[in-house]
Amino acid sequence: MAIGCPPDQARTAADTLLSADLRGVDSHGVARLSGYVRLWENGRINPRPGIRVTYETPSTAVVDGDGGLGLVVAPFAMEVAIAKATQAGTGWVSTRNSNHYGIAGYHAMQAIPHNMIGMSMTNASPLVAPTFSVERLLGTNPIAVAIPAGEEPPFVADLATTTAANGKLEILQRKRAEAPLGWIQDAAGQPTTDPTATTRGGALLPLGGDREHGSHKGYALGAVVDIFSAILSGANYGPWVPPFVAFLPVAPNLPGKGIGHFFGAMRIDAFRPADEFKQHMDQWIRRFRSAKPVEGQERVLIPGDPEREFETVRRLEGIPLVDAVVSDLMELAARFGVTPIAAV
Amino acid sequence: MAIGCPPDQARTAADTLLSADLRGVDSHGVARLSGYVRLWENGRINPRPGIRVTYETPSTAVVDGDGGLGLVVAPFAMEVAIAKATQAGTGWVSTRNSNHYGIAGYHAMQAIPHNMIGMSMTNASPLVAPTFSVERLLGTNPIAVAIPAGEEPPFVADLATTTAANGKLEILQRKRAEAPLGWIQDAAGQPTTDPTATTRGGALLPLGGDREHGSHKGYALGAVVDIFSAILSGANYGPWVPPFVAFLPVAPNLPGKGIGHFFGAMRIDAFRPADEFKQHMDQWIRRFRSAKPVEGQERVLIPGDPEREFETVRRLEGIPLVDAVVSDLMELAARFGVTPIAAV
Repeated sequence: MAIGCPPDQARTAADTLLSADLRGVDSHGVARLSGYVRLWENGRINPRPGIRVTYETPSTAVVDGDGGLGLVVAPFAMEVAIAKATQAGTGWVSTRNSNHYGIAGYHAMQAIPHNMIGMSMTNASPLVAPTFSVERLLGTNPIAVAIPAGEEPPFVADLATTTAANGKLEILQRKRAEAPLGWIQDAAGQPTTDPTATTRGGALLPLGGDREHGSHKGYALGAVVDIFSAILSGANYGPWVPPFVAFLPVAPNLPGKGIGHFFGAMRIDAFRPADEFKQHMDQWIRRFRSAKPVEGQERVLIPGDPEREFETVRRLEGIPLVDAVVSDLMELAARFGVTPIAAV
Repeated sequence: MAIGCPPDQARTAADTLLSADLRGVDSHGVARLSGYVRLWENGRINPRPGIRVTYETPSTAVVDGDGGLGLVVAPFAMEVAIAKATQAGTGWVSTRNSNHYGIAGYHAMQAIPHNMIGMSMTNASPLVAPTFSVERLLGTNPIAVAIPAGEEPPFVADLATTTAANGKLEILQRKRAEAPLGWIQDAAGQPTTDPTATTRGGALLPLGGDREHGSHKGYALGAVVDIFSAILSGANYGPWVPPFVAFLPVAPNLPGKGIGHFFGAMRIDAFRPADEFKQHMDQWIRRFRSAKPVEGQERVLIPGDPEREFETVRRLEGIPLVDAVVSDLMELAARFGVTPIAAV
């Protein structure tokens, strides 16, 4: 609110960030707040955007985020998708002129209480080299799919289309530990275990790691995310996606506006009665969860299990923040005259 | 036609098989014909199915394939998706009571001449172990996405959600060559390079190969394919998907009917004018294709390039068939009184 966000939008943005922290995705939680503020300082985030639907059909829409925070633009667009699905069975919304939108899974999960399947994807700053490429042309371009169940908790897949998310690499960089082969390549496009290689012209690798292990599939999935998010909507794509960090300049002659997202909502009962569907989802989940695990592993997980377990613990015990994040937040609080909730 | 297929359905099935052979996916072409015939002999394929829409909304439908050949059921369902998209902007069709549908990409590509994005996925006989599982609970569950461009050929991603497709493993089995680590596990769930391990209780691995390299992502994608294809439609899912080969029995107490597919069609101009979209697709494709390649590689490929290059060559030079497939086809021809096109 101190940078000019209307109260309802500030609340939405805070909810998205806190959801990431609760679910254990620390790289996408309040740790990012100071970065958003720096983007605003550089005029790259509009704190009072006029977010609007610019085109629509019964089951589709294009949303222009007017340069707003992705944390605010994305929930608006997801609401449009849900409203379309209520009427037409499904709703699909491509979004331009937005910014970093937090965790993909949060937006997909908005569909669950409506008895809908939710989907969310976004393009992102170029950090990933397609198979055989030295150049970084794609972001980590995540895909999230949230599917309601009955007595079981929902199925929530939320995955970067790379072998490892950038947040995991940052952890290794801080620890000065080696990365597994298959996560990154160096500036010449050769495999490396040095996690700092991405800061010197190296790149993250698409899911699969190398051609022999299917990196062309991770590349194809990341490309689909890019095209659905940006070419359908008129956002920037590929190497032209503006960087998420304020210290890197935006390229000239951009082909679109801001970054792009893509959202989907499918009403379960546009296919079959929701109760029937949920009974079978429960059966699916129970069968997979009870599969015999390999030696040394406790059990087979359902997508969304790890994040939900984080949330259960953190709702009770609180969210641990590293010192650097706490001092960042305290600095922001002091600067904008906000009273911190508690000193740690 | 000799097993009772109506002529138009036989033509559709032949077209799908030939498309696989033309595009270099030999494992899904005419090599499969005798397998389909064996399924028919065992009463597991209905040669004259009454394929029908059992439920619909403006943008969705459920299709029941009445136990027909997937090669015939899938084109019917994809046509429904395209018709829905023409009216409502997008169309989404979940399909039950079907069988093996050939190559996923073929069905997705039917959308291209309509200026639509096409999508196709299917579940399949359980051959894949989820991350940490000893048991095989998923099929190779492919995802295909076909996207029209302008002057450039279309973007066609067609990928099994495993590190390697089963067809590639079969090639190694025939050659008695080793498989790379990350493709398969043995019956105890341990990594192995023995390509025959899958015939003795082993399993294919989800895209990523192991947890450290993101196999939970491949597992999640394969699971989404299973749920969209089968739980939305009322087909069998997970370990209950009936085997594609006639010599393996169908499990008792099935939760659904046959195998399931999922199709999507999105009209480009439900988002923005098709010309604009295609210009940007051309720019996307040219930028990626001209990326600097790593040493030793000729260039960066666009999804669909390898298959199209096969098709160009094979349309000129013909489709090479291995001896085993030729004798299989000659036997079928003799048995059903069909005149072979040519002796090889």
